[in-house]
Amino acid sequence: MVPGWRAVRALLVARRRKVKKLLVDRERGKPDEEVLDLAADAGIRREFVEDARIAREARIETHQGVVALAAPVPSVRLDELTSATDAFLVAVDGVTDPQNLGAILRTAEVAGATGAVVPRHRSALLGPAAVKAAAGAIEHLPIALVGGVAGAIEQTARAGVWSVGLDVGGTTPVRELGIADAPVVLVLGAEGRGLSRLVRERCDVLASIPVYGHLESLNVAAAAAVACFEVAARRHL
Amino acid sequence: MVPGWRAVRALLVARRRKVKKLLVDRERGKPDEEVLDLAADAGIRREFVEDARIAREARIETHQGVVALAAPVPSVRLDELTSATDAFLVAVDGVTDPQNLGAILRTAEVAGATGAVVPRHRSALLGPAAVKAAAGAIEHLPIALVGGVAGAIEQTARAGVWSVGLDVGGTTPVRELGIADAPVVLVLGAEGRGLSRLVRERCDVLASIPVYGHLESLNVAAAAAVACFEVAARRHL
Repeated sequence: MVPGWRAVRALLVARRRKVKKLLVDRERGKPDEEVLDLAADAGIRREFVEDARIAREARIETHQGVVALAAPVPSVRLDELTSATDAFLVAVDGVTDPQNLGAILRTAEVAGATGAVVPRHRSALLGPAAVKAAAGAIEHLPIALVGGVAGAIEQTARAGVWSVGLDVGGTTPVRELGIADAPVVLVLGAEGRGLSRLVRERCDVLASIPVYGHLESLNVAAAAAVACFEVAARRHL
Repeated sequence: MVPGWRAVRALLVARRRKVKKLLVDRERGKPDEEVLDLAADAGIRREFVEDARIAREARIETHQGVVALAAPVPSVRLDELTSATDAFLVAVDGVTDPQNLGAILRTAEVAGATGAVVPRHRSALLGPAAVKAAAGAIEHLPIALVGGVAGAIEQTARAGVWSVGLDVGGTTPVRELGIADAPVVLVLGAEGRGLSRLVRERCDVLASIPVYGHLESLNVAAAAAVACFEVAARRHL
């Protein structure tokens, strides 16, 4: 289920997965005509139904009156992601909020990340709320589902990919990340608790975002945005 | 109504507004003992009630089992914000999602912003969902409610504050914002539509965040994070 106009548009543009049909709210004004045309061009059935049907299929309230029924997101193998010489990966270690996960994937995609690493036991988070928040990133950003992030970091290290954990106690300010233009995996921890102990120990570098106000830390999706664009800026000097 | 442990903690630490009482879910495990102690020290009544009562008062689902009943957030006058020689303001022009608004306020506070500018007709957005997402930023970051953002930009300009609008079509990459260490107001547009025409015309600079992937743009809260930390980085070289 892919809810929301942005996400549906990306689904239709990327053409990575088979789309069964599009359900559009027949009463809500202003459907995205371009999206409707994309669906028509691809020979995808469009059904104009009542709002309640969309809400039931989308399983979230913020569906904007559209949901597409599509094949599951294909997952890739981690070694496919690490083999790229310009690998720029984002791994989520313990993020539990689907909206944060979706927001992180969207930010990573816009920043030019080449893949994401998500623990398999968290893959249920990749549901409608994350897909909507990702606004289409899931159609473009290859995602590797892994047994655990700590193990994945070992594997990426063997492939020559540096691991940078974002941690409030990190000693390297993100602004001074010297290795950001090497193959890199940014590792993001859980909302509140941060990185797990094992992951923190295995990261090559622990980077922090400076705090200039009264609050202790950024939301994990905001931290991801700052860190991803630090990496992006170094790669596009 | 202030829901969520982070937001309640900041409310009690900042002591800017009168707190009537704290409602805590009596069945949910792991209340934040430090927050309960802060309330006790301040002589604030703590009631241990059932979950349904909290949900009713908090008016959002993600209340984490705690809600504080407090006096409304005080708003300040715009000229109080512009008179600071190190003014670093964030104005929201048309953001409609309370979670985005709350996330922006949190990010701005952590980045060292000295105030926020919110249109008065959007002030209803500063409800429980925004307060929770702001994670306490609302207790620390002074907020000016204004008639409109376009008028506010005129007023800040007269006070010598530069206005920087974030716009996908902006010609100055945020990374090259030369004026970020002068008094500045960052202006953020609506999700999807961006800045209104009038606001776009009145900004001194239109800055953009480069896009390196397939998607068109960042979520407004992610864009705010990148831009706020660009300003912060320049101010703390």
